[in-house]
Amino acid sequence: MNDTAFQIPTEMRVSVLSAPGEIHVEHRPVPRPGPHDVLIRIASVGVCGSDTHYFEHGRVGSFVVEHPLVLGHEPSGTVVAVGSEVTDRHPGQRVSLEPGVPSAFSPETLGGHYNLDPAVRFFATPPVDGVFSEYAVHPAAFAHPVPDSVSDDAAALLEPLSVAVSAVRAANVTLGDRVLVSGAGPVGLLAARCARLAGAVSVVVTDTREDRLRVAEAYGATDTFTVASAPPDTAPFPGSGYTALVDASGAEAAILTGMRRLAPRGRIVLVGMGSDTLSVPVPLLQERELQLTGIFRYANTWPTAIALAASGDVDLDALVTSRHTLGEVPAALTAGTSPGALKAIVTP
Amino acid sequence: MNDTAFQIPTEMRVSVLSAPGEIHVEHRPVPRPGPHDVLIRIASVGVCGSDTHYFEHGRVGSFVVEHPLVLGHEPSGTVVAVGSEVTDRHPGQRVSLEPGVPSAFSPETLGGHYNLDPAVRFFATPPVDGVFSEYAVHPAAFAHPVPDSVSDDAAALLEPLSVAVSAVRAANVTLGDRVLVSGAGPVGLLAARCARLAGAVSVVVTDTREDRLRVAEAYGATDTFTVASAPPDTAPFPGSGYTALVDASGAEAAILTGMRRLAPRGRIVLVGMGSDTLSVPVPLLQERELQLTGIFRYANTWPTAIALAASGDVDLDALVTSRHTLGEVPAALTAGTSPGALKAIVTP
Amino acid sequence: MNDTAFQIPTEMRVSVLSAPGEIHVEHRPVPRPGPHDVLIRIASVGVCGSDTHYFEHGRVGSFVVEHPLVLGHEPSGTVVAVGSEVTDRHPGQRVSLEPGVPSAFSPETLGGHYNLDPAVRFFATPPVDGVFSEYAVHPAAFAHPVPDSVSDDAAALLEPLSVAVSAVRAANVTLGDRVLVSGAGPVGLLAARCARLAGAVSVVVTDTREDRLRVAEAYGATDTFTVASAPPDTAPFPGSGYTALVDASGAEAAILTGMRRLAPRGRIVLVGMGSDTLSVPVPLLQERELQLTGIFRYANTWPTAIALAASGDVDLDALVTSRHTLGEVPAALTAGTSPGALKAIVTP
Amino acid sequence: MNDTAFQIPTEMRVSVLSAPGEIHVEHRPVPRPGPHDVLIRIASVGVCGSDTHYFEHGRVGSFVVEHPLVLGHEPSGTVVAVGSEVTDRHPGQRVSLEPGVPSAFSPETLGGHYNLDPAVRFFATPPVDGVFSEYAVHPAAFAHPVPDSVSDDAAALLEPLSVAVSAVRAANVTLGDRVLVSGAGPVGLLAARCARLAGAVSVVVTDTREDRLRVAEAYGATDTFTVASAPPDTAPFPGSGYTALVDASGAEAAILTGMRRLAPRGRIVLVGMGSDTLSVPVPLLQERELQLTGIFRYANTWPTAIALAASGDVDLDALVTSRHTLGEVPAALTAGTSPGALKAIVTP
Repeated sequence: MNDTAFQIPTEMRVSVLSAPGEIHVEHRPVPRPGPHDVLIRIASVGVCGSDTHYFEHGRVGSFVVEHPLVLGHEPSGTVVAVGSEVTDRHPGQRVSLEPGVPSAFSPETLGGHYNLDPAVRFFATPPVDGVFSEYAVHPAAFAHPVPDSVSDDAAALLEPLSVAVSAVRAANVTLGDRVLVSGAGPVGLLAARCARLAGAVSVVVTDTREDRLRVAEAYGATDTFTVASAPPDTAPFPGSGYTALVDASGAEAAILTGMRRLAPRGRIVLVGMGSDTLSVPVPLLQERELQLTGIFRYANTWPTAIALAASGDVDLDALVTSRHTLGEVPAALTAGTSPGALKAIVTP
Repeated sequence: MNDTAFQIPTEMRVSVLSAPGEIHVEHRPVPRPGPHDVLIRIASVGVCGSDTHYFEHGRVGSFVVEHPLVLGHEPSGTVVAVGSEVTDRHPGQRVSLEPGVPSAFSPETLGGHYNLDPAVRFFATPPVDGVFSEYAVHPAAFAHPVPDSVSDDAAALLEPLSVAVSAVRAANVTLGDRVLVSGAGPVGLLAARCARLAGAVSVVVTDTREDRLRVAEAYGATDTFTVASAPPDTAPFPGSGYTALVDASGAEAAILTGMRRLAPRGRIVLVGMGSDTLSVPVPLLQERELQLTGIFRYANTWPTAIALAASGDVDLDALVTSRHTLGEVPAALTAGTSPGALKAIVTP
Repeated sequence: MNDTAFQIPTEMRVSVLSAPGEIHVEHRPVPRPGPHDVLIRIASVGVCGSDTHYFEHGRVGSFVVEHPLVLGHEPSGTVVAVGSEVTDRHPGQRVSLEPGVPSAFSPETLGGHYNLDPAVRFFATPPVDGVFSEYAVHPAAFAHPVPDSVSDDAAALLEPLSVAVSAVRAANVTLGDRVLVSGAGPVGLLAARCARLAGAVSVVVTDTREDRLRVAEAYGATDTFTVASAPPDTAPFPGSGYTALVDASGAEAAILTGMRRLAPRGRIVLVGMGSDTLSVPVPLLQERELQLTGIFRYANTWPTAIALAASGDVDLDALVTSRHTLGEVPAALTAGTSPGALKAIVTP
Repeated sequence: MNDTAFQIPTEMRVSVLSAPGEIHVEHRPVPRPGPHDVLIRIASVGVCGSDTHYFEHGRVGSFVVEHPLVLGHEPSGTVVAVGSEVTDRHPGQRVSLEPGVPSAFSPETLGGHYNLDPAVRFFATPPVDGVFSEYAVHPAAFAHPVPDSVSDDAAALLEPLSVAVSAVRAANVTLGDRVLVSGAGPVGLLAARCARLAGAVSVVVTDTREDRLRVAEAYGATDTFTVASAPPDTAPFPGSGYTALVDASGAEAAILTGMRRLAPRGRIVLVGMGSDTLSVPVPLLQERELQLTGIFRYANTWPTAIALAASGDVDLDALVTSRHTLGEVPAALTAGTSPGALKAIVTP
């Protein structure tokens, strides 16, 4: 660890999930960076639905919390120390941490899809601790410097923006596309914005909540529709001929309704997590040659996300609807249910 | 219609489906080609499962036989007359007829996906008559000349070969791929062969029928497995890490079993028609970023199919397991159930 | 030709190029639409550099004016009559005419690249007359209806916008790209705008003329540089790491300078016409795996161009710097050399 | 370094280039593997034209031999020891060494193009030593295990096969393509073979040497033509309408002749190194929308190359035309000029 004028304490406060619904703050030693790592003083951490799910249920899908776990995987902060081999980061640099770190030379990593590396270590995914803590160590290559025009909160929210970038890439959105986005939570909003930025001439957003659709209009939606949370009928909203559907709702009804509105060779990208199966109408898929895929997090998105945030093309700060200290993590984890809530931020 | 030494009769014999299970031969006037058409003396017509389905049920999906219909959509023959504007076809030329003709300047046609043009007219799809008849008129551009190395039967079977070419293109098979083909009927066999020709280093074929798997070994399969026609269990056959799955079975169990064997970013192409819905496991699709699509017939496949047949890369004649006259069309339509049967040919 | 309340005269005025530098207005019969055609009262015609080149030199490349030729290939107008088979156009409809019409079922047309059909007929390309005339006949499918939000001038200028759309597609511009555009004439300006709309986070435009770069700032340029029209030196302007270069200058020096600034796997699209050869540095091309291509007009661009113009995403009217009657075509053809000139419009 | 029954000596013999034309064998310590490395007993090393160029001229392009250098970058061998962190390689395993090792988390590496990482370390590229030596240390991830069906020589020649795989991928060869390969040295022959395996229905190979074209027929060529080494004329060989050109000659005349034979949207991949510039005919490139690119080595090719060699799809052993000991490296480096010579192998 290189010398630094900054005084690094030996202990830090950490928010720990010990059982479903049970979170407390404890003290742990400040970790020391390995040769290729940086030590970060955490500034802001975005709260994600998966954090809340771990908090409430102790598991997300096949990932089960069997030992005390630190949640939080959308962090920004400042470099306070760098490992012996790190030459391109320095103390004082503001960074956004990309939470998933793959093994170096796996086939998936070398093939450009490091998110699919089975050995990837991801913040707040058991047994890997997250960043609801004062400090964290991370490989320098995944601590992306951000310019001053990107706030600490925005630097944290580059993570959901990366999901949106990944979704829009998977949907292959380009000049002239007509995109349907189902679900207007943070990821849906950002996907709408990215679809518009990627050349879509129309971006229609649907949600069951009116208040979120109002926000969608500020995030690139050219039209919005309130849909019932009931099963799809034949015409819950007008319009068809979309070239792509990005689902950020995880609701089967929304996906199936959207699929029927797609033009031939339309693309469907499943981003939202919800029901375990999707009952795909095979003749529709075949007769229109629709293309259905899903995304798993993201790869190679940070440079683009930083550029979009730094230029003002995407306003991340406007997503923040509440801010919480490390002691208020439980409140942060349940803030999403409040009317108008979009994104809670923890500032350790 | 240009002069020709060939004597064209004024009447021809045609096999007509008047009701489910009821087919008879009747006499109709020989049609005259329009300015851009050719008149063809039909040589061979392959029998397809959809012909059989119309014969037995009077419908295929949403297409219902409401008026007497001529079946048969996989024809070859010889040009006997050409329309006034046709300069690049001549009487005596042997041709394979591509059965679907789109409108000229629709967005889908101009966009390179003429198979998806909603106005496409396709042989033996109500209300368009097929080619179980002595003569047929067809636009010259869709009457593809074939060299002498392609037999009349093979020229007819360029149609299922086109389906296979389309499937392998949709699966994006390339050098080094490992392809799983479920279903070893004619299309599955040809898809296996095309996958191998497109660079797949392994091509594994599964079917419920042992006899068909024996044929698969001659059609490019590097390995074969007999699967039960029961619901999928976790290991109905060994192997995993396939980069693509081409389903030519239409069986949900086969598709789901195959999906679980795919490597990250594996492609799934649904060719076979079967159950109306497919219950897709969403977490699997997302966590491996699988890509699911279906194909609807084919576009721009004939030149490739002709080259593959002409060079001997694909042996189409070996698929023919029975041959029938125009009066024997009912027998031809039900020949597929015989043990060892692959492809019946009608020679009008 | 369907009846129409509109009174169509039998004669019209036409601007005819009889020899280099010699243009006069003559009277010709108003043409009658064939069954699939529409008859258009021309409203606005954009003047293109190739029109000027024919006017001054009597040829463009291998295309030589051997007989009197009507110039002009960027027309808009109003439908005044439709052919007997036309059902989806009607008198009174405002349209933009796509100037190149391919043969219906050529391999290139069916393959989605109808611009490359060798039989394409293109306005104002010998021996096909252009549209510096009061009326023109055109296939209905290539007379694209435009909404009221698109002016007559803008409807004419959908043609250069189509070139820009085609260039940006060929450059595969997507979210996060950094694009260099060399040449700030109308096509370069529109390419800059389309690159930005397609997701480029930076769009740098270079030109030898300061005045054009001022306009570029209104057309999506995030930065501009004045370059000398001399041979390239090692650093005529700052910056590197571009992911794509769209050349709309045709100047070898600009192309080579731009190529050296590209990131690995950068794309180069040659749009501008200029020197006959480009001396490509092979080691640079190989070591960075650069991808060099050129575009020939466009295919399947009008729907996107219309949407971009109708939404206001692209301001085409602002490109118009002079307007001329049919009798003033020679002045229109030479207007481009005036300071500040971008696009001349002829209103027949 | 894990224990191993194999007795590893402390010294090894190495062939060292000290000045142009001057090579001698010296003794050096056997290197010890780092934690993620393997130590290899070298079995076979293919001789490449770049080795010969360094030997004769002391440089290749901008790479200059300023200190004694070990040549040789196409090695196979047997693992004799593994580093402390290596779990998936073991002593006794036969491997092919991929010669270029990138930095772990550079943008290019994470993006799937690790060959373009500027920090890549590549055998026998100053200042990195090559493998004309008895032992070498290499990262385990780049020491690819090979099955018994791949000989030591073949395992070495997976390197030029990787170049061919990379070329055929860049040319996007697929079912039905018609490929022209110029240059029938080892890489050209392997590119021809790979093009055929990737679905090309015709593969035409040209060279100035008759003897090499005879070999091409065994490597997938469907036709061959002897071309003069003089400037191109309009018809040095018959044929046109190729969909791709892979140049393995580096000769401008061959490239330009080939380009003129391409169908619309044809792809050109420059593999061979030769003249520094290529005088590209811009109107041809634009009017046919040709796509020109070059490749720099390869990325993610070994698994495919191994599969192709292991299955017998590609016969690498047949390329070996001479075999040399470590003391005979100078003879190996100049063996390529002998009539009939293709590939020399050094067995240290």
